Amino acid sequence: MNTNRDSTPLRKQCGAEFIATAFLLIAIVGSGIAADRLSGGNQGLALLANAAATSGALFAIILTFAPTSGAHMNPAVTLVAAWSGNFAWKNVFPYALAQVLGAVLGTWIAHGMFDLEILEISSHTRTGAGQWLAEFIATVGLLGVIRGCAAYSVPTAAAAVAAYIGGAYWFTASTSFANPAVTIARSLTDTFSGIRPADVPAFIGAQLMAAAAIGLMLRAKAPKDRP
Amino acid sequence: MNTNRDSTPLRKQCGAEFIATAFLLIAIVGSGIAADRLSGGNQGLALLANAAATSGALFAIILTFAPTSGAHMNPAVTLVAAWSGNFAWKNVFPYALAQVLGAVLGTWIAHGMFDLEILEISSHTRTGAGQWLAEFIATVGLLGVIRGCAAYSVPTAAAAVAAYIGGAYWFTASTSFANPAVTIARSLTDTFSGIRPADVPAFIGAQLMAAAAIGLMLRAKAPKDRP
Amino acid sequence: MNTNRDSTPLRKQCGAEFIATAFLLIAIVGSGIAADRLSGGNQGLALLANAAATSGALFAIILTFAPTSGAHMNPAVTLVAAWSGNFAWKNVFPYALAQVLGAVLGTWIAHGMFDLEILEISSHTRTGAGQWLAEFIATVGLLGVIRGCAAYSVPTAAAAVAAYIGGAYWFTASTSFANPAVTIARSLTDTFSGIRPADVPAFIGAQLMAAAAIGLMLRAKAPKDRP
Amino acid sequence: MNTNRDSTPLRKQCGAEFIATAFLLIAIVGSGIAADRLSGGNQGLALLANAAATSGALFAIILTFAPTSGAHMNPAVTLVAAWSGNFAWKNVFPYALAQVLGAVLGTWIAHGMFDLEILEISSHTRTGAGQWLAEFIATVGLLGVIRGCAAYSVPTAAAAVAAYIGGAYWFTASTSFANPAVTIARSLTDTFSGIRPADVPAFIGAQLMAAAAIGLMLRAKAPKDRP
Repeated sequence: MNTNRDSTPLRKQCGAEFIATAFLLIAIVGSGIAADRLSGGNQGLALLANAAATSGALFAIILTFAPTSGAHMNPAVTLVAAWSGNFAWKNVFPYALAQVLGAVLGTWIAHGMFDLEILEISSHTRTGAGQWLAEFIATVGLLGVIRGCAAYSVPTAAAAVAAYIGGAYWFTASTSFANPAVTIARSLTDTFSGIRPADVPAFIGAQLMAAAAIGLMLRAKAPKDRP
Repeated sequence: MNTNRDSTPLRKQCGAEFIATAFLLIAIVGSGIAADRLSGGNQGLALLANAAATSGALFAIILTFAPTSGAHMNPAVTLVAAWSGNFAWKNVFPYALAQVLGAVLGTWIAHGMFDLEILEISSHTRTGAGQWLAEFIATVGLLGVIRGCAAYSVPTAAAAVAAYIGGAYWFTASTSFANPAVTIARSLTDTFSGIRPADVPAFIGAQLMAAAAIGLMLRAKAPKDRP
Repeated sequence: MNTNRDSTPLRKQCGAEFIATAFLLIAIVGSGIAADRLSGGNQGLALLANAAATSGALFAIILTFAPTSGAHMNPAVTLVAAWSGNFAWKNVFPYALAQVLGAVLGTWIAHGMFDLEILEISSHTRTGAGQWLAEFIATVGLLGVIRGCAAYSVPTAAAAVAAYIGGAYWFTASTSFANPAVTIARSLTDTFSGIRPADVPAFIGAQLMAAAAIGLMLRAKAPKDRP
Repeated sequence: MNTNRDSTPLRKQCGAEFIATAFLLIAIVGSGIAADRLSGGNQGLALLANAAATSGALFAIILTFAPTSGAHMNPAVTLVAAWSGNFAWKNVFPYALAQVLGAVLGTWIAHGMFDLEILEISSHTRTGAGQWLAEFIATVGLLGVIRGCAAYSVPTAAAAVAAYIGGAYWFTASTSFANPAVTIARSLTDTFSGIRPADVPAFIGAQLMAAAAIGLMLRAKAPKDRP
């Protein structure tokens, strides 16, 4: 996941992050809309469909874009990659920008497919200490899985991340956003997967605290592991 | 997926495409009928079963037929393979014909299993700009995943395609037909997965536009990537 | 799946088939009972759980027992293996006997776990031309997937079979027994997954016709493929 | 799964077991709470989500921690590893302690995320001969799958264990605890996945009997297999 081919030009890498993150949001927001419409009011059934669709799409998207850009699709992932010395710091902002812009575009495409207004603002309240703890745990887990699976093949790592996120939709109280770009984009949809703009900063704060925790841990370990 | 063994005779390849696509439609149409009957009117539950069954069958079918014919089962896939130079143009029509005939046969076998009239015409309306956009996005995504996963092993590519389609049933507004042969065959079933004949041309048009977009992109990249 | 290690004594192979098939029936019958009890009368939800549990267990059981006995767990699979020259004819009956006895034991263990009478006879009607066609198609598909995936690694073949069966629970009108040993054992449970003894012969007949069709096809191809 | 790298210090291995088991319980208890809240009283739907989330998380956790500690997360697994000569007896207690403490912490984190009292005692009755038989069968199956898949790669073994547990939630009458550390921790949550403290000893007894059965079997086979 932290692959960073120096031979691929940054422009092409950022293009891959842009398209990959757009597809990720099409999957998250789109399946949320369909699940909510079709599930007859049963939120459990809707979340089951939303989680399965996100997990399946994530597996395919990671495999497709990993060779080009590492398929981060997540500023927290990019930050930890830089912190642990596997990614150039100067490329963090371009990556994060491509991820956020792609995420917003993907949300809008989902709206277009489902005949909704393109521009929306979410009214879905997601706040409180439990949810913030959930975002911290969800992000620590995601970053830990990515780090722990870096030694396996790309398909294995992709399967691990997809399985983890599919599970984390259920086992965290926040349905596991675990991604600042995704969080920003989901504030722009007033559907199943939305989050009120007012609740975004705390979510991103928890996610970045998790990134810092994992990043510091990796930096502390680095001197011992790689002399 | 784009494997095209020159050593396998075309007759045998087309036979594989015929049987593979027949089984694919048995899976799509058959599981749609069963899901609709058993789900007590909950369309979300029915789509969950339909998506899971299609995804599982697709994985097994691709693995089974990939060594013989590449397991395209989809004229859009065959077209892009030809466009990108991985498939002989003269074999496109035989492949597409085998796919369409197999798809129709599969639909009829599903009807036979579930004690329905063999010959039906769908009355299921699927139309509108949102659905056409959805078919374009769904097909771009499918073709992109196939192209992006061509460098992995066949099992990994098969898993990626199956996971993508399982997800796309949910995250596109059209439940992701993404396949002209499948679209034609599904006009011949008046069940859960059907589509009115009148709505078929626009779906296929969107799918072929997606194939052209990906095909042109691959052709544009080709000179740079393979000198 | 057709692995037949000559170095493993037949007694040990049959023991593996016995235990493997017992666990398979624990999975099929047990998950059927639990699904039926917990699903509040929604047969679609029950079948979704039944299919997912069977598929997951099947994947694990095949991997566990494939190195010892090939993990056939199915007289139709054993017959086709013998027909195509990959299995000694004299071992077919011992294998089939171990499979049937294991299947019956597994059904009884499932009854014990769920506090049911150990000895039951099913009253679940499963009959008619549609269901017989379904069993023929389901078994042809299963045997075709096993044959088509024999060239891949054992984990890939196991995943393909598990995915196929998980799908076939839905896309066939009979929920895909596709296995004479399983069919016999399921006549001994009056629960979700049962089948009336009177309906067993036609199911097994359809399954054996499928085995004969695949077996003859493989035999016809053999001279060309392996000189 | 039984990997035990002598080069990794015991302190670090126990830390991995602690964190891994904590995450496992976050997944089990957390997804149980969410599933119960969202499923509108349908216990089948809740168990489907609980099983899928546990299975997905388990796959990712095993992959992440297997290189460090073998990712046992289960005193029964550790015991069998020692019994079969693949694990030092003196490390069994430290491993088991880390597993139990991690499991308890994970349960409490789940409570924190879902705004429940951190300290709870379960009132969920799980008792009777059927359930004890179920725990014995579930644990025999788990240990057998781990042993049977030891010859495959870590990703394959992890997938087999995750698929088995996802299935066993359904096909055993006890929803397959199969783990003394998990059983103890689940007595400390009065939610969907809880178990009354009074019912814990019999569950653990059944699990340890299964471990003894598998351990004795492996010991009996050992002289023949490895001279």
